[in-house]
Amino acid sequence: MIRWCLRCHRSLFYSAVERNMNMRFTKMQGLGNDFVVIWADQSPEGARDLARRMCDRHFGVGADGLVFLLPSNAGDVQMRILNSDGSEAEQCGNAIRCVATYYYERISGARRELSVETKAGLQKVWLETKAGQVSGVRVDMGEPILEGKRIPVSLDDGPVVDHPVEVEGTSFPITAVSMGNPHAVIFVEDAAGYPVETWGPRLEKHPFFPNHTNVEFVSVRAKDELEMRVWERGVGQTLACGTGACASAVAAVLNGETGRQVLVHLKGGGLTIEWDESDNRVYMTGPAQTVFEGEWAGDR
Amino acid sequence: MIRWCLRCHRSLFYSAVERNMNMRFTKMQGLGNDFVVIWADQSPEGARDLARRMCDRHFGVGADGLVFLLPSNAGDVQMRILNSDGSEAEQCGNAIRCVATYYYERISGARRELSVETKAGLQKVWLETKAGQVSGVRVDMGEPILEGKRIPVSLDDGPVVDHPVEVEGTSFPITAVSMGNPHAVIFVEDAAGYPVETWGPRLEKHPFFPNHTNVEFVSVRAKDELEMRVWERGVGQTLACGTGACASAVAAVLNGETGRQVLVHLKGGGLTIEWDESDNRVYMTGPAQTVFEGEWAGDR
Repeated sequence: MIRWCLRCHRSLFYSAVERNMNMRFTKMQGLGNDFVVIWADQSPEGARDLARRMCDRHFGVGADGLVFLLPSNAGDVQMRILNSDGSEAEQCGNAIRCVATYYYERISGARRELSVETKAGLQKVWLETKAGQVSGVRVDMGEPILEGKRIPVSLDDGPVVDHPVEVEGTSFPITAVSMGNPHAVIFVEDAAGYPVETWGPRLEKHPFFPNHTNVEFVSVRAKDELEMRVWERGVGQTLACGTGACASAVAAVLNGETGRQVLVHLKGGGLTIEWDESDNRVYMTGPAQTVFEGEWAGDR
Repeated sequence: MIRWCLRCHRSLFYSAVERNMNMRFTKMQGLGNDFVVIWADQSPEGARDLARRMCDRHFGVGADGLVFLLPSNAGDVQMRILNSDGSEAEQCGNAIRCVATYYYERISGARRELSVETKAGLQKVWLETKAGQVSGVRVDMGEPILEGKRIPVSLDDGPVVDHPVEVEGTSFPITAVSMGNPHAVIFVEDAAGYPVETWGPRLEKHPFFPNHTNVEFVSVRAKDELEMRVWERGVGQTLACGTGACASAVAAVLNGETGRQVLVHLKGGGLTIEWDESDNRVYMTGPAQTVFEGEWAGDR
């Protein structure tokens, strides 16, 4: 259980802002998805405005989200994420790798296997190290959901594999997978050159997906290699999406395109995804890095 | 003459990176135009790649430019700016306000009047303070250039006031002013709602401007108030442009729209511009702020 930083011996950083002191933070990134990470002694309700100000890329620190680390009674540490618009995210595959790296780098004697408490439940992560540095983080992303009504799509059964969905006269062969959030995976010839900005938003809000959907455009490079571009629900095109890479790997297996372990190339870098046959769970391994440490002046 | 930081007593920060140490920096912003500021003991040639990596908004610190502070034999301090693409900028009105604030906040006994050496020559700045904090910085932006061939536009004489330039069948009444870089100022009813992205790039590269041009769309709010949107040459729409605000104020005087001192509202905030009748020089006063201090991990 963490109550203060083992490096600078200060605690209560979020409260410090309220007392108009400078606030120490760490900027981290995983595949270009970037976060301001702070220790906190209180949950982030009431910090929506702080998240908006800190995440602003011109007037603030600049980030996709503000991550609060809190003590956890259930696991090693608790993580809560506020998006740059102040809303709370349940989970984020890139953020959890950053949190695990942050924890491991700072807590002496930290184990290589951690459990992180998130709003979506306890998540297990494993740290891979090389010469004392974190070289990768493996995350248990859970079992994929393939039944239509649970994804959800407007079909009750499943799996929904290679199912045609029509948009403005063009038919897209959809494989639908939920990793806690819905994904529509479409295999294309050339993901890198695909007009993601054109078709992403149209598929996102297609009536086939009652809660809307994330959309992945994926090319098969080899039996163990995919290339993916993602249109994130409510966000737009991003450099990387952890759950999207998992959904794409599952979809590739369902379509007989690859084996159960693949390297997925995203704009922001690569993720190794394994859909384990023995326990039906999906494991994601990828990088996370400390970019800089900072001290925020707040609203002087 | 500065050779090391008076706060942390470290010097040679840029060299520190080369030696694979962490590098201390300060993130500053003026009207949302944001900069990573570092002390350096060598000029920024050879640091193009460092600028690109530090300015990257997802994998680096994130900024519009990397500002090097160097010792100066001619003035109080020397400033050099690398843009986020690694190219060098001659001058920047927002960066110089940041540099002056940075210098004043860190150098005990610093005067309120500083001279900053830039690639475009020595520039005088004056600090305004309130309760010991910098509340604004006044910068001598020099004399406006109004002769056609020196702006340059494809007319030899000048001033070029309310001159029609045609783009795809639409005629734009241009007032052309150089503040060291060329500006085309166009008065419109509603700058806030103007389709800057549509007409900015077409005017930027119009043959009337042999070196291309920055474009300002300006509404007159009152005899001492303008609202401005800017399309910057080679960049696109930005939150603010100091030389653009100066050019707009000069153009407003030339068109009989305002007096010689105006408050210019930009997306990123307000600038007070005065075109002094006695010396023909333009003075810009605006804010600059330290956002946070950081220590960069580099490429660990």
